[in-house]
Amino acid sequence: MFESSVYKNRRSALLAGMAESGARGLAIFLGNTEAPMNYRGNDYKFRQDSSFIYFWGIDCPGFAAILDLESGCECIYADDVDIDDIVWMGPQPSVASRSALAGVEKSKPFAAFAEDVKAAMAKGRAIHHLPTSRYYNNMTVAALTGASYEACTRPSSMTDGGRHASLELVREVVKLRLIKEQCEIEELDKAGEIGYLMHTAARRNCRLGVVEQEIVGAMEGVTLAHGWGVSFTTILSQHGETLHNHHHDGTVTDGRLLLVDAGAESNTHYASDYTRTYPTGGRFTPKQREIYDIVYAGNELAAGLAAPGMTYRDVHLAVARVMLEGLREAGLVRGNIDDMIAEGTLGMFMPHGLGHNMGLDVHDMEDYGEIHVGYDDDQVRSPQLGLGNLRMARRLRPGHVVTDEPGIYFIPALIRDWKTAGKSLEFINYDRLEKEYSDFGGIRIEDDLLITENGCRRLGFRRLPASAAEVEEAMAKDREE
Amino acid sequence: MFESSVYKNRRSALLAGMAESGARGLAIFLGNTEAPMNYRGNDYKFRQDSSFIYFWGIDCPGFAAILDLESGCECIYADDVDIDDIVWMGPQPSVASRSALAGVEKSKPFAAFAEDVKAAMAKGRAIHHLPTSRYYNNMTVAALTGASYEACTRPSSMTDGGRHASLELVREVVKLRLIKEQCEIEELDKAGEIGYLMHTAARRNCRLGVVEQEIVGAMEGVTLAHGWGVSFTTILSQHGETLHNHHHDGTVTDGRLLLVDAGAESNTHYASDYTRTYPTGGRFTPKQREIYDIVYAGNELAAGLAAPGMTYRDVHLAVARVMLEGLREAGLVRGNIDDMIAEGTLGMFMPHGLGHNMGLDVHDMEDYGEIHVGYDDDQVRSPQLGLGNLRMARRLRPGHVVTDEPGIYFIPALIRDWKTAGKSLEFINYDRLEKEYSDFGGIRIEDDLLITENGCRRLGFRRLPASAAEVEEAMAKDREE
Repeated sequence: MFESSVYKNRRSALLAGMAESGARGLAIFLGNTEAPMNYRGNDYKFRQDSSFIYFWGIDCPGFAAILDLESGCECIYADDVDIDDIVWMGPQPSVASRSALAGVEKSKPFAAFAEDVKAAMAKGRAIHHLPTSRYYNNMTVAALTGASYEACTRPSSMTDGGRHASLELVREVVKLRLIKEQCEIEELDKAGEIGYLMHTAARRNCRLGVVEQEIVGAMEGVTLAHGWGVSFTTILSQHGETLHNHHHDGTVTDGRLLLVDAGAESNTHYASDYTRTYPTGGRFTPKQREIYDIVYAGNELAAGLAAPGMTYRDVHLAVARVMLEGLREAGLVRGNIDDMIAEGTLGMFMPHGLGHNMGLDVHDMEDYGEIHVGYDDDQVRSPQLGLGNLRMARRLRPGHVVTDEPGIYFIPALIRDWKTAGKSLEFINYDRLEKEYSDFGGIRIEDDLLITENGCRRLGFRRLPASAAEVEEAMAKDREE
Repeated sequence: MFESSVYKNRRSALLAGMAESGARGLAIFLGNTEAPMNYRGNDYKFRQDSSFIYFWGIDCPGFAAILDLESGCECIYADDVDIDDIVWMGPQPSVASRSALAGVEKSKPFAAFAEDVKAAMAKGRAIHHLPTSRYYNNMTVAALTGASYEACTRPSSMTDGGRHASLELVREVVKLRLIKEQCEIEELDKAGEIGYLMHTAARRNCRLGVVEQEIVGAMEGVTLAHGWGVSFTTILSQHGETLHNHHHDGTVTDGRLLLVDAGAESNTHYASDYTRTYPTGGRFTPKQREIYDIVYAGNELAAGLAAPGMTYRDVHLAVARVMLEGLREAGLVRGNIDDMIAEGTLGMFMPHGLGHNMGLDVHDMEDYGEIHVGYDDDQVRSPQLGLGNLRMARRLRPGHVVTDEPGIYFIPALIRDWKTAGKSLEFINYDRLEKEYSDFGGIRIEDDLLITENGCRRLGFRRLPASAAEVEEAMAKDREE
């Protein structure tokens, strides 16, 4: 938890922003409850709601808070523990003392939360809430406001009466959370260091004959030893062409590419997110190396271009251009680059965007609507595969944190699908793809960038080996140890 | 996944049991969906509903099934993937082929599930469902049947019309799942072996100066490398007197007791659950050893007594008796053992029961109501702290799996509470407890027992060091390495 002034300043800024937007009424914040795994009481590891952490700092289940947008009054709602709780959970600080650490003077029992919200509604006051991520919170909000499930999760403007998530609140929260403060940057660097350690454990455990799951265990153990856990379910596979592959039953065999996309969440809940792709035997084949170098060039270019004033959409497109040039040199596409960009040809090789915002969530605030988080008001989302999947397109500003994760994949089903549909027929060398690349897999290289005053820097204290030469050198060294 | 005949036999047995109980209508089964961690799409590691695994075997999100209790017809409901899914998740087996592996011939798209349930309800047929564990499933069932949240989670007899969880279905499912089949016992042994490996990693990492979280990371990494993950959130603390202590920020210091209660879930989702308590410096002090030996005697006694025909309630009471004798010898209680048993005096030292059922859930089927799972029809639950917390009291039968986990804790708040309330004043030496044991902590020793034809055996392939001498010897060996 940061100093109480951090949370007080954030709430003051939110109040000011909401006043400016003309919003009135209450802003309500629901912390998370425990999430049952296989039965109620056997819960997943508790994860607090990210905006609750951001504004109220309290990292325990069963809390809620209200910020009165007119009077500025704030109150935290939760129940103090009794002797049974102490036997099971140990002595706990009081709700009042936890609230004080967040700079909040007033606290009430949890039951008063519903009473206070209902009393305000009875007076016709607007209730602004963020889109609910958890089903339990959804049920709670729906019961309070009478809204439907859908309405609780999709923000729209409260000017129409408001039994739904509040677009005004989303806009102001996004505005604040997108620009990272110094204390947050320090935590993001720490999460980056844990990411470094976990990926290093993965690389060292990438040996022929090992089952993928054993590598996952080794790397996630490192994460749990130093942080809260993984910031998302680890992707580790010799089938890197499957973008989110969570099966880990393969045995590491020679001549393959092992794609590892994984990140850590610090104990303060800030994320890191890195991807590296390793030649299973320690050295890339010339064919692998050719594609790897294209992806690496894209990754480097993005880090060179990302700077205040540039949009991340333009960085994506510049990377797309360089990667298409590489693919053309490799003989996998042919023709004019501008034409390919216009037609979205790269989408078949890279069906995702260059990156996304990152912070307390690995895809920061994704539940608030990607269009509200990742796009400026004057930007329209493309319908193309690839560019259209870009989660972050905004004009960059100092304090933005984005991932830089170009990739090239050879997805047999997608190649078949595009060829059958006659897509980019004049550009893509389908024959060669089908004959020579159907068992290639996929390559992705990902770092996390902090936008600075003049450009950007990679988060974390040290960079994981990234170029083909660095990767091979590191793997050779691992084998000596 | 087991052979399809395993699932077919279980469903046949369920059909027969339900018929015998006079139940008619449909039994419906909801598999789990993904559980959002911090936003929808960033989910916790998927965990299928245990009864869905048990009867239908399919370990993927988005499945449901119906068993017609009258015609015996069965059908699985889920959606096949499209090209977008393949890009992100890779090629997937069809719903029909997954169903075939479970021995089910008929499958339909997921939307047909609600249609089929509603059509049956329109005909006045009863809808038997298990208590819902997950909030999303709760919302789904509530939307289908019009039942309240509470009604979906608390089983009662369907004879009254039935807009709630079905007691008849609970009873028949419990009957089946409580008695483990040979194929399940093999998986429980495997989960036991992973538990052995994880606890061994914990013990080896228990060194002075290490932060508890580092030990947790090391042990959970082992679990993830060999199994699905932890069967419950790891308890690892030098404050073992807090029964479910999930804080791991302490630094291991000399002279303390480190209590480690943790278990693994195999890739097939069977649980293990072990507790060991280590002297942080490698050797117990005489005072620690005295209490440790009492707990160890209790653990050993339970394993000696547990056998078909005996109730686990009686095993609990026999263990309570031996532990009270030990505490009397140690000068912490005085007086007649029978009187102390009658008054529940041990509850202050051991405010939990001797053990619980275990299987696909670490507390097997706890959501179905402990009274339905852990108690025979003629047994009444005690109101006493300790005995009343006993989750498993039933008459033992071959195939039952129970934990054997006596403990002694010195909980300052509970000691104060009992003393103030004047509880067991004539038996408990409060003076000595307050003066000498307020910073002692707690000790628990836990193994998992399979009830056999003649007695019981410990699950797993080898036993973790358990006696004080074994623990000290193992720790001395760890330090040599």
